[in-house]
Amino acid sequence: MTTFDELSRRLGQVSDLGAAASLLSWEQETFMPPEAARVRGLQLATLAGLSHELFTAPETGALLDGVQPDGDTQAAVVRVARRDYAKATRLPTAFVEDRTRAQNEAHHAWVHAREHSDFASFAPYLERMMDLARRQADLRGFEDHPYDALIDDYEPGMRAAQVQSVFADLRDRTLPLLEKIRAAGDAADYGVLTRPFPADAQKAFAWRVAGEAFGLTGDFARQDESAHPFQSNFSRSDIRITTRVEEYWPACLFGTWHEAGHAMYERGVHERWERTPVSAGASLGVHESQSRMFENLLGRSLPFWQRYFPQLQEAAPQVTAGLDAAALYRAVNRVQPSLIRVEADEVTYNFHVMLRFELELALLEGSLSVRDLPEAWNAKMQAYLGLTPPDDASGVLQDIHWSAGLIGYFPTYTLGNLLSVQLLEAARQDAGVAAGIDRAEYGPLRAWLVEQVHQHGRSLSPAELTVQATGWPLSADPYVAYLTRKYGEIYNLN
Amino acid sequence: MTTFDELSRRLGQVSDLGAAASLLSWEQETFMPPEAARVRGLQLATLAGLSHELFTAPETGALLDGVQPDGDTQAAVVRVARRDYAKATRLPTAFVEDRTRAQNEAHHAWVHAREHSDFASFAPYLERMMDLARRQADLRGFEDHPYDALIDDYEPGMRAAQVQSVFADLRDRTLPLLEKIRAAGDAADYGVLTRPFPADAQKAFAWRVAGEAFGLTGDFARQDESAHPFQSNFSRSDIRITTRVEEYWPACLFGTWHEAGHAMYERGVHERWERTPVSAGASLGVHESQSRMFENLLGRSLPFWQRYFPQLQEAAPQVTAGLDAAALYRAVNRVQPSLIRVEADEVTYNFHVMLRFELELALLEGSLSVRDLPEAWNAKMQAYLGLTPPDDASGVLQDIHWSAGLIGYFPTYTLGNLLSVQLLEAARQDAGVAAGIDRAEYGPLRAWLVEQVHQHGRSLSPAELTVQATGWPLSADPYVAYLTRKYGEIYNLN
Repeated sequence: MTTFDELSRRLGQVSDLGAAASLLSWEQETFMPPEAARVRGLQLATLAGLSHELFTAPETGALLDGVQPDGDTQAAVVRVARRDYAKATRLPTAFVEDRTRAQNEAHHAWVHAREHSDFASFAPYLERMMDLARRQADLRGFEDHPYDALIDDYEPGMRAAQVQSVFADLRDRTLPLLEKIRAAGDAADYGVLTRPFPADAQKAFAWRVAGEAFGLTGDFARQDESAHPFQSNFSRSDIRITTRVEEYWPACLFGTWHEAGHAMYERGVHERWERTPVSAGASLGVHESQSRMFENLLGRSLPFWQRYFPQLQEAAPQVTAGLDAAALYRAVNRVQPSLIRVEADEVTYNFHVMLRFELELALLEGSLSVRDLPEAWNAKMQAYLGLTPPDDASGVLQDIHWSAGLIGYFPTYTLGNLLSVQLLEAARQDAGVAAGIDRAEYGPLRAWLVEQVHQHGRSLSPAELTVQATGWPLSADPYVAYLTRKYGEIYNLN
Repeated sequence: MTTFDELSRRLGQVSDLGAAASLLSWEQETFMPPEAARVRGLQLATLAGLSHELFTAPETGALLDGVQPDGDTQAAVVRVARRDYAKATRLPTAFVEDRTRAQNEAHHAWVHAREHSDFASFAPYLERMMDLARRQADLRGFEDHPYDALIDDYEPGMRAAQVQSVFADLRDRTLPLLEKIRAAGDAADYGVLTRPFPADAQKAFAWRVAGEAFGLTGDFARQDESAHPFQSNFSRSDIRITTRVEEYWPACLFGTWHEAGHAMYERGVHERWERTPVSAGASLGVHESQSRMFENLLGRSLPFWQRYFPQLQEAAPQVTAGLDAAALYRAVNRVQPSLIRVEADEVTYNFHVMLRFELELALLEGSLSVRDLPEAWNAKMQAYLGLTPPDDASGVLQDIHWSAGLIGYFPTYTLGNLLSVQLLEAARQDAGVAAGIDRAEYGPLRAWLVEQVHQHGRSLSPAELTVQATGWPLSADPYVAYLTRKYGEIYNLN
């Protein structure tokens, strides 16, 4: 065995332990009987612990030091593994265990606090999470801002300053658009979005279209139900998405296509990275660019509904009665400021993210105290969206992220939105891709995405990938132009 | 941390890895998309390898040597773990890996051979499996017969000589019964057993009765479909059974109740053994005693159908049309020699097992060569059941066991049958239990089983458990008496 073979074997074991943990987690959300939860938690902790132990063992370090990679594939594996190893070994085991316990406690406190809309009871736990985030940033090290050390876990190489600059540009150029839309008024009929649509028919239609339009099939994937939709995968041929059925039936459809975007990214990662740390999406932001592209740029486009409206008619004639493709397109593109991030439309969504980014930056710096957070939240909601939450449950307590210690995570949603349009515009430079998109035939686009984005896995950084695929660094320009064009037309703003 | 705490932590990790592997295997048979199979195999190999490594590590041995167990619970954990450790470390890693590869190859060869009814193509692989079995017996060590070292994996403490003696007794006393039944003729109408019974209704009825009669509920268990029914569990609160729907609908019903017997055994293991090697059934034979009790002794009894016939009428009126409980009871208790073990009735089933036991003993001893196996198989089928298989696919190639290296496994099916009646007779000594059984109310019986069988897990050997629960060692007497009584009545033999 060469040193690389030995390293490969070890990385393969780490990958397998991670896949097993993912499967246990997926199953916990989909099929697991309720009484199984406690021991399942212990099993997941064991898998995480053994995986961490195996990966951070001195033997791994010695292999990474001694290995002489042969060729590009091996070089990428070693590069990514070295980066992960350096990050993982910088956190002492005692810190990781402490953080895991604190996350667990904070999560339970958050569930209780949200249920009773009682921020005060959650505040001490959030303070603890912020302390841990600061300590983690110190342990990891950073040049400019502690936030840089945190966001790097989700968006490798991204910096707080870059997020601030891109977000400021986006904010300054979409606030006027939003004001115009609100001033234009909205006389459309949205009742269609809650017409009765049987649960099985919703799921079947969403899944069939995910296959026909986006290539997600039962050969290597499956769809199940869970309380919160997500994508998970245990190899590129073992992918799961979940959905949820609501009275508001677009949630199931667009949610399915969103998860299909994540799924097809993982599917497209080249098999030469199998069971190595390269075999995953480049970042959460790049991942989100794929899910939002399928969900919004394609799924909420007019050509899409011109193509799939007949299938919707067949699947749910009572929903489409009296409508045509254009009317449906109009209904699923309502812009309306709202309190809840996950229900927000394409125009207002990013304000929810900016607000969270600004607040977590202030919390981390200490310029905002946890005690004053609800007030700061409500002030920003008023400033951006003209709304004030009636209670903290529909305000500062709505998201799980902070309770799980995910500081630096929120910006990736908006980075993904921006990148989705930037990528789609780049792809449209290819005439075949553009013609396909305009007919809602996405084969050429999907091939372009595999070539430019998916296949590389984590072998390119998000910034490298963005420049290589689109020709320039991440920018708000394409997204702003997209929103202005699309909603200018829908709301007759010109 | 005391030494026992350290040992506990390690055994807990081994248990968690095993549970994760079981979940991956269960999911492979129920939900996994087809293309996922290859990598899933690698993941399962990693989990098995890491678990073996962790358990057989010198550190485990040192803990087992140094530990001073405090109290009965700890003592049982240490006793069982020491026994497992001694067995596991007696097989060199090279041997285990070699055997795993050989099993994998033999399995594929068997699938192909069975499909083409081509024993000759499987023979070299079976020879290899027998060689490995002999080597394994030598590595493990034995006093009287190499078979003793093999059956010990499935039925701890059992010996070939004891199996021979019990089986001879059983054979000599059931062959005359079978002859009488065959001579009596059979004019019953079995067409009811293939009347149309919608798949969902079959599963729902089987599952509902498994809950009401046997206590298996969605709080801690679930039922799914798979090609071959099985029970699996990842903790005593995380249990799965699978079923298969056929035109012959009793397969789904009795199969479900069979697996419910396995499931309720695992459910009944005391939680003080959680995440230790004690937390499982005492042996395959004891396990089978529980599954066969629910499936046959209860599920195929007249009181059972007197109680549940109305529910069957409601679930499938087209199946029960023109029938009553007694007619249904009669139909599901047909005795008819047949070629396939898994389809055999209560009277003929054990002959299938005896035949296999005798053949694998002869193969192991070398008194029978693999080349001559099909002929020997067919001769015994003729002698016991008066049938000759038309081809090897429905003869010597029908079972997966030998291809998987499971030599010494088959007898546990019949040992389980015998024990099922011996246990039920012992339980009936309690008047409340007996009255319940006669009304098909199994609460008191289930409490007795938890007390006498389930809760002990692996802390008692099968022989200890049998004597403690029934007052005497395993015997064919109760089973022979049961068959004679039940089928004497059904076939009017007296």
